[in-house]
Amino acid sequence: MTQITPQRPALDALQALDARDPLAHKRAEFLLPPGVIYLDGNSLGALPAAVPARLDHVTRQEWGDALIRSWTANNEGGRDWMALPDRVAAKVARLIGARPHEVAVGDSTSVNLFKALSAALAVADAGRRVILTDADNFPTDLYVAQGLNALLGGRYELRPVPAADLSAHLGPEVAVVMLTQVDYRTGERLDLAAVTAQAHAAGAVTLWDLAHSAGAFEVDLNGAGADFAVGCGYKYLNGGPGAPAFLFVAERHHAAPVALSGWMGHADPFEMARDYAPAAGARRFVVGTPMVLSLSALDTALDVFADVDLGALRAKSLSLTETFMALLDGIPDLTLVTPSDPSRRGSQVSYRHPQAREAMRRLVERGVIGDFRTPDILRFGFTPLYLSHAEVYHAAQAVQDVVQELRA
Amino acid sequence: MTQITPQRPALDALQALDARDPLAHKRAEFLLPPGVIYLDGNSLGALPAAVPARLDHVTRQEWGDALIRSWTANNEGGRDWMALPDRVAAKVARLIGARPHEVAVGDSTSVNLFKALSAALAVADAGRRVILTDADNFPTDLYVAQGLNALLGGRYELRPVPAADLSAHLGPEVAVVMLTQVDYRTGERLDLAAVTAQAHAAGAVTLWDLAHSAGAFEVDLNGAGADFAVGCGYKYLNGGPGAPAFLFVAERHHAAPVALSGWMGHADPFEMARDYAPAAGARRFVVGTPMVLSLSALDTALDVFADVDLGALRAKSLSLTETFMALLDGIPDLTLVTPSDPSRRGSQVSYRHPQAREAMRRLVERGVIGDFRTPDILRFGFTPLYLSHAEVYHAAQAVQDVVQELRA
Repeated sequence: MTQITPQRPALDALQALDARDPLAHKRAEFLLPPGVIYLDGNSLGALPAAVPARLDHVTRQEWGDALIRSWTANNEGGRDWMALPDRVAAKVARLIGARPHEVAVGDSTSVNLFKALSAALAVADAGRRVILTDADNFPTDLYVAQGLNALLGGRYELRPVPAADLSAHLGPEVAVVMLTQVDYRTGERLDLAAVTAQAHAAGAVTLWDLAHSAGAFEVDLNGAGADFAVGCGYKYLNGGPGAPAFLFVAERHHAAPVALSGWMGHADPFEMARDYAPAAGARRFVVGTPMVLSLSALDTALDVFADVDLGALRAKSLSLTETFMALLDGIPDLTLVTPSDPSRRGSQVSYRHPQAREAMRRLVERGVIGDFRTPDILRFGFTPLYLSHAEVYHAAQAVQDVVQELRA
Repeated sequence: MTQITPQRPALDALQALDARDPLAHKRAEFLLPPGVIYLDGNSLGALPAAVPARLDHVTRQEWGDALIRSWTANNEGGRDWMALPDRVAAKVARLIGARPHEVAVGDSTSVNLFKALSAALAVADAGRRVILTDADNFPTDLYVAQGLNALLGGRYELRPVPAADLSAHLGPEVAVVMLTQVDYRTGERLDLAAVTAQAHAAGAVTLWDLAHSAGAFEVDLNGAGADFAVGCGYKYLNGGPGAPAFLFVAERHHAAPVALSGWMGHADPFEMARDYAPAAGARRFVVGTPMVLSLSALDTALDVFADVDLGALRAKSLSLTETFMALLDGIPDLTLVTPSDPSRRGSQVSYRHPQAREAMRRLVERGVIGDFRTPDILRFGFTPLYLSHAEVYHAAQAVQDVVQELRA
């Protein structure tokens, strides 16, 4: 028998929540395989139902039939590939509290981190030499900073500290504070506005990684006075495997130098001038020719958000994670590592478990897909657009069963 | 009446050439719109017939159904996205005279230029401070060098000189010689082996842009002793709009520093280590998560080359461009800017014309798609995989007619 805690929500109560879920209709806008409860949209978002037809159209009509003419044809239906990065940027901007001309879409998150960090260092006070970051930041963020700093002759010190100690390290030597808002392992969410204010008070420039934020809840970059940010297209934005990422550059920093200066960020790409002259706004941070197939999938994926109230999105996300935690409260061998305070939580719940890798293997076998993160983390992501409370109930039941099995 | 030169090939003679074309069967492996003669594969390659089904499979099965499991599933049919960049790299390697572990696929050509140039400068003799390049190099090559040099505090001098004067500038101050093998405007082809040898004799490192070479004719990078190269996935490789580009790093330079160091180039991405440790070989130059949709299209596009003899490809390419030039020989107002010496020609033919923009507009209206390049260039690319001599005949006829119209 599985252990029942007094607060354990009942299935019928959860079904009643689902019945009045204002986002319930969004589930039909995704294609999910039968028999699967998908708790890994924080790693790869599910397939929006409109994407296959869009890709087929882009491939057969725009590429196959219209060929080179699609670059500049001002037709309906997604052509005019030159403007596609800007159209996608405008859709991302709404989700992160940015203005369209402050967002550039294209390249991977890692490459955008490089662009953002090089620009952030350039606008930081000249004498400051420390890049302050969370020691548990997602590895690629650390690697990009290491690579850039080596390229710059080791001029900076990358200082990774525990998240809890960040404010203690905010001294006059800090040039840039580079943080991921939601920890990819624990799901802990930082207060973007408060940390930004703190960094600014210390004279530092901020660079936020919104990989686990954008599309999971409303982000208000301009409301927080943020400087630079990057984010991922393939997690909560559901843009497909390796989808183009985005870069936010606050308008006041648009004159920052563009380290990765390519022809698609030029003021007039087809002038074929010998000298780089940046395009207006964040478009200058678009580098080479955009990957139109991947970018088109992201473009269509973002349309799912068009009628979504971001407050309702956050409310449902918290309800789902709250429910999951309540259902698993007190289960032996599971140690919650995600904050139970909702304001400190993203849209994921993680537990330590002594046999986490094997536990996740068994869960996936049962159709409950989360993921394992080294060394001992069971990670479950909750995408409010396509998950129900009833699914959360069944997923929690599977977790209990597997944990029980492993104790036996 | 159009003017006929004595050497003008006759249509029936050209049809006879087509009848014994060893590559004629490749035409059926492309989807081209009816009524179009496509002479712009040097800008955007045509759609390989197998691509739409591959994209649909990747989207619905690999992404939609298998979801996150596709990253590591070692199944047939294109899954195992972690290894996809390496599989595509091996297919590119064969076309450019490289070994598979010397090629990295992903990111745009511009981003790869940045990676290659930063690595080339790092392995060049420390005292050398000049990046020597062709003043008529494709603009993004110049922009990338400008951006990198500015990031490095202007430590280098970017020296653009006319291609004809390159050897005169190969002094002891030259760190890197950065050249595009085939000029995007004139179609002039440099002798990759000879120029590489000359650069090496002068103590410089070479960086070749193969945008208009790879897939148009055989390239032998290792035969030439080349150091670094980049190339484009969406021109003669037919990988689709903005397809991932490639980077070649000769094995002897694999220890060069990786400026764009991301988690997908890490020796063990899922170890989630805090410090970057490069993967073996050129894989270290893969940066962020690959754009799987675009990369899968390129993967399938490259399969078209699997049974293609690269010598036959070059022979047909020269026969097509030779035929086109012979048909247009002596036409008033058309000034050939492409070398007539076949060894100095890529797979394109360009003419100056006083009303080039309007002439190309009229040609496109008639279904002959080439392109206009500022200020006065009519550019025609010849992809030997899907063009026939008979099409070249009809295209040349259309050019003659339009030129005649514009004189009237």
